[in-house]
Amino acid sequence: MTWTTQQIAELTGGQLRGPGDVSVGGIDTLETAAPNQLTFIGDAKYARKWPQSKAVAALVARKVEMPQDGARPIIAVDNVDIAVAKVLEAMAPPPTQPEPGVHPTAFVDPSATLGDDVRIGPHVVVGPNVTIGDRAVLHPNVTVLADSAVGADSVMWPGVVIRERCTIGQRCIFHPNVTIGADGFGYRPDPGGRGIVKIPQIGTVEIGNDVELGAGSCVDRGKFGPTVVGDMCKVDNLVQIAHNCRVGRCVIIAGKAGLAGSVTVGDGVVIGGGALLKDHITVGDGATIAGQAAVMTDVPSGGTWVGYPAKDARIAGREYAAIAKLPDVLKQMKKILREDR
Amino acid sequence: MTWTTQQIAELTGGQLRGPGDVSVGGIDTLETAAPNQLTFIGDAKYARKWPQSKAVAALVARKVEMPQDGARPIIAVDNVDIAVAKVLEAMAPPPTQPEPGVHPTAFVDPSATLGDDVRIGPHVVVGPNVTIGDRAVLHPNVTVLADSAVGADSVMWPGVVIRERCTIGQRCIFHPNVTIGADGFGYRPDPGGRGIVKIPQIGTVEIGNDVELGAGSCVDRGKFGPTVVGDMCKVDNLVQIAHNCRVGRCVIIAGKAGLAGSVTVGDGVVIGGGALLKDHITVGDGATIAGQAAVMTDVPSGGTWVGYPAKDARIAGREYAAIAKLPDVLKQMKKILREDR
Amino acid sequence: MTWTTQQIAELTGGQLRGPGDVSVGGIDTLETAAPNQLTFIGDAKYARKWPQSKAVAALVARKVEMPQDGARPIIAVDNVDIAVAKVLEAMAPPPTQPEPGVHPTAFVDPSATLGDDVRIGPHVVVGPNVTIGDRAVLHPNVTVLADSAVGADSVMWPGVVIRERCTIGQRCIFHPNVTIGADGFGYRPDPGGRGIVKIPQIGTVEIGNDVELGAGSCVDRGKFGPTVVGDMCKVDNLVQIAHNCRVGRCVIIAGKAGLAGSVTVGDGVVIGGGALLKDHITVGDGATIAGQAAVMTDVPSGGTWVGYPAKDARIAGREYAAIAKLPDVLKQMKKILREDR
Repeated sequence: MTWTTQQIAELTGGQLRGPGDVSVGGIDTLETAAPNQLTFIGDAKYARKWPQSKAVAALVARKVEMPQDGARPIIAVDNVDIAVAKVLEAMAPPPTQPEPGVHPTAFVDPSATLGDDVRIGPHVVVGPNVTIGDRAVLHPNVTVLADSAVGADSVMWPGVVIRERCTIGQRCIFHPNVTIGADGFGYRPDPGGRGIVKIPQIGTVEIGNDVELGAGSCVDRGKFGPTVVGDMCKVDNLVQIAHNCRVGRCVIIAGKAGLAGSVTVGDGVVIGGGALLKDHITVGDGATIAGQAAVMTDVPSGGTWVGYPAKDARIAGREYAAIAKLPDVLKQMKKILREDR
Repeated sequence: MTWTTQQIAELTGGQLRGPGDVSVGGIDTLETAAPNQLTFIGDAKYARKWPQSKAVAALVARKVEMPQDGARPIIAVDNVDIAVAKVLEAMAPPPTQPEPGVHPTAFVDPSATLGDDVRIGPHVVVGPNVTIGDRAVLHPNVTVLADSAVGADSVMWPGVVIRERCTIGQRCIFHPNVTIGADGFGYRPDPGGRGIVKIPQIGTVEIGNDVELGAGSCVDRGKFGPTVVGDMCKVDNLVQIAHNCRVGRCVIIAGKAGLAGSVTVGDGVVIGGGALLKDHITVGDGATIAGQAAVMTDVPSGGTWVGYPAKDARIAGREYAAIAKLPDVLKQMKKILREDR
Repeated sequence: MTWTTQQIAELTGGQLRGPGDVSVGGIDTLETAAPNQLTFIGDAKYARKWPQSKAVAALVARKVEMPQDGARPIIAVDNVDIAVAKVLEAMAPPPTQPEPGVHPTAFVDPSATLGDDVRIGPHVVVGPNVTIGDRAVLHPNVTVLADSAVGADSVMWPGVVIRERCTIGQRCIFHPNVTIGADGFGYRPDPGGRGIVKIPQIGTVEIGNDVELGAGSCVDRGKFGPTVVGDMCKVDNLVQIAHNCRVGRCVIIAGKAGLAGSVTVGDGVVIGGGALLKDHITVGDGATIAGQAAVMTDVPSGGTWVGYPAKDARIAGREYAAIAKLPDVLKQMKKILREDR
C-alpha cells in the first residue's frame, strides 16, 4: 500500500513544499529509510543528515531550517511526533486476530458468557462463569479462570493468564505472557517456629479501561480487597505490580519496574524503567520516578525522584555532582591535612 | 458468607469488647473497608482513623489504646498480623481448580504416571515418563516435559513450563508462566575465533517441598548436577535463579531479584526486591540482602547487605549519610582551599 | 553411560597422568562430584581441595601443580573451561523433543508452510502464512502468529510466543515463555488533553541465526522498521529488548538486563545482569557494561561502563574508593573546620 505526499500532508495537517504526487510506501528514520519511504526531522541537528538519507520525502518540524534539496518534498508540521503517529495510524496493517467466533480447539466452559462478535483462538481456555465482552479478542493459548471478566473490545495476546475473580476493563491490551491475579507474596512465621506459612490471598484484581500491559508483566491479586490499576494506565514489559497496589489513572510504567505491596500511585505518574517502589509508600499525582530509582519513601505530587536511595532530583543531582568531584577533592584534602599536622 | 464477631474472637484467640453477634462479611484496611467488613489496627498511630472507618468491627493489637467509640466491637489480639492471617484462612473461598481427572483436551503421554485424585486441566501437556503425584493440580496450558516429576499436592497454575528431568517437591505452588529447567547461560569462544559456542547444560533442577514460585520466575537447569531450591523457600514474581545455584531452606526472595550462576544461599536468608547476586558468591545463613542491592562478594551469616556495590549495612549507612552531607561540605572546603592558597 | 579416562583425555586433547581405564559416569565440581564422577581444577587455589574430593579423576589446567595423590588419574589440559565444555558435549543426553511431524492436537493453519522433518508438539498453534524451516522444533504450547517465519533447525521451547510478521533465523533456541513481537511502548498525548493515545507499532522483529534467548525474555516489534538482534547473540532470562533496538553480532546479555527503545549495540558487546540502557543510546563494538549499571549516555567501543549513573570503570572505581573513605574524611574535616573558625 502506498500514499502520496499530498495525502500525507492532509492527514498530518502539514504544509507541503514540493510535489504532491510522490509515492510513499512506509516510514523510517533518516538512516534506515528505504528509497520509497518517508522520514522525519524533529530537530535542527538532524537536518544535515537529510541530503544523505535515501528517504523520498520528510515530515519536518516547522521550526527546523532545511538544507537546500532539489526535488524531494518536505511536509512542515507543528509537532513531528504527533505527525509520525498519525502516519503510523494510517499505515498500520489490519490487526492480526483469530477468526470470528470460538475456534473448535478452544475450551469454553458452558457456564461462561460470551459477548457478540468475540474472537476466541485455538487452544484458549475460558473457565466457569467467565464473562467475555463484545468484540473481545482472545488469541491462542490464553487462559481465563473462573468468575473473571474481560471487557468489550479488549485484546489478550497469546499466553496471557487471568486467574479467578479478576476484572479487566474495556479496550485493554495485554501482551503475551501477562499474568493477572497470581497470589500476593505474603507469609507468616509458623507458630511452631519451624518455618513460614502462606497467608491466603483472597482478594482480586481490578483493571480499568484502556489499560495496556507489556509482555511478561504481572499484577498480583490482593491479600484482601482488590489490587487496582486505573483507566488508561500504560505498563511496559516485565513489570511487577504487587498485591493491594492502587495505581491511579494515566500512569506510565516503563519496562522492568516494580511496585511492592500496597503501593499507592497517583494519577499521571511516570515511572522509569527498572525503578522499584518499596511497599506501602505513596507517590503523589504527576510525580516522576527516574529509571532504576530505589524509592523507599513517599514521593510528593509533582516531585521528581532519582537515585539509590531515591531522593528529590535536585538533591540527588547535587550529590552526584559532588561525588564526581570527590576523588580530586580528597587528593587536595590529603595535602592540607598533611600540612595541618 | 459471614462470620459473627464472636466467631472472629474465637478463631483469633482474641478478647472481644462489645457485642458478639455483629455480622462480618470480609476484611479490609481502615480506609477501604466496607460497612459490613472487619478491619485491623496494629499500631497506635492508626487508632485515630478508627472513628472515620466504615468497618463494622476491628482486630486491634492489645497494646493499642483505642479512642472511645460507642457501639462497634473491638477484638484485642496479641499479634494483629497473625490474627489477620487466621481470618483470611477462615474467609478464603474454595480453591479454583480443574475438575478431577484428566480433561479430554489435555495430552498425557501414555508412559506418564498419574497419582490418585490428580486434576489435569484443559490443554495441559504431560510428556513421556513424567510422574504426577497424588492430588496434584495442573491448571490449563501447563507443560511438563519428559522424565520430570511433580510431587503430591502441588499446584501448577496456567502457563507453567517444567522442562525435562526436573523434580518438584510436594505441596509446591508455581504461579503462572513460571519456567523450570531452561538451559543455564553458558558459552565458550569458538575455537576458530569466529564467535561463541553453547556449552551443553546437562544438569537438572531439584525443587524441595512447600516451595512457592511467583509469576514469570525462572529456575535454570544446572550445567552439570542440579540447581537446588530448598524446602519452604518462597520466591516472588519475575525472579531469576541461574544454573547451579544452591538455595537453602526457608529462603525468601522478593520480586525481580536475581541470582547469577552457582550462587549459594544459606537457610533463612531474606533477599529484597530487585537485588542481584553475582555468580559464585555465598550468602550465609540468616543474612538479609536489601532491595536492589548489587551483591558482588560473599555475605556472612546474619549479615545485612545494602547498596551498589553492596556492603555491610552499617558501613553503607555511614556512606549514604556522608554523601548526603557532601555537597555542603564541598562548598565549605572550597572556601578553605581558597583561603589556603 | 560411562567413559574411560583414556577417552576423556582423547576428547579433551589432554595429557593423561595415571590409569586410562578408570570409568567416569558424569562431571561435577570438587565439592559435589560423586565417587564415579570426573571433576576439574582450573586454578591452583582449588588444588588443595582435591584430596578431599570424592571425584574419581580430574581435568586440571597444565599450569596447576597438584598435590601428591596415589591413584586417581589427572588429565592435564591447556584450558579447563574448554575441556569441561567438550566433556559436557560428549555426555549430553539426546535432546528432549516432540515426535517427528505434527502432533494431532496442534493447530496448524492450512496456509502455513512446514519444512522437512519438523517436530510440532501438542497444542502448538501455527498461524496463517507462517513458515517453519526444516528440522525446526516447536515444543508444546508454542504460538506462532500470522506471516512469521522460524528458520531451519531452530528450537522453540514451551510457551514461546512469536507474534505476526516476525522473522527468526536458523539454529535459534528460545527458552520457555519468550515473547517476540509485542508492541513497542509508544504513546502520544490525547489531542483533547484527556489522556494518552497508543501509537501503532507497525514494525517487525528480525532475529539472526544462532541466537539464544532465555526464559521470559522479550523482544518488542519496531514502531516502524524492525527491531534487530544479530547473529550469534546470547541473551539470558527475563531480558527486555525494546522497540527499534539494533543489537549487533555476538552480543552477550546477562539475565534481567534491559534495553530501552532505539538502543544501538555494537558487535561483541557484553552486558551484565540487571543493567539498563537508556533509550536512543549507542554502545560501541566490544564494550562491556557492568551488572546493574544504569547507562544513560553513549559508551565508546571497547569501553567498560559501571555504576549508577554508569561511567567509565576507571572513573567510577575512583569514585567508589573515594566514597568508602568519605565518612572518615568528613570526621577529620569537621575537626579542621572547627579549628578554622
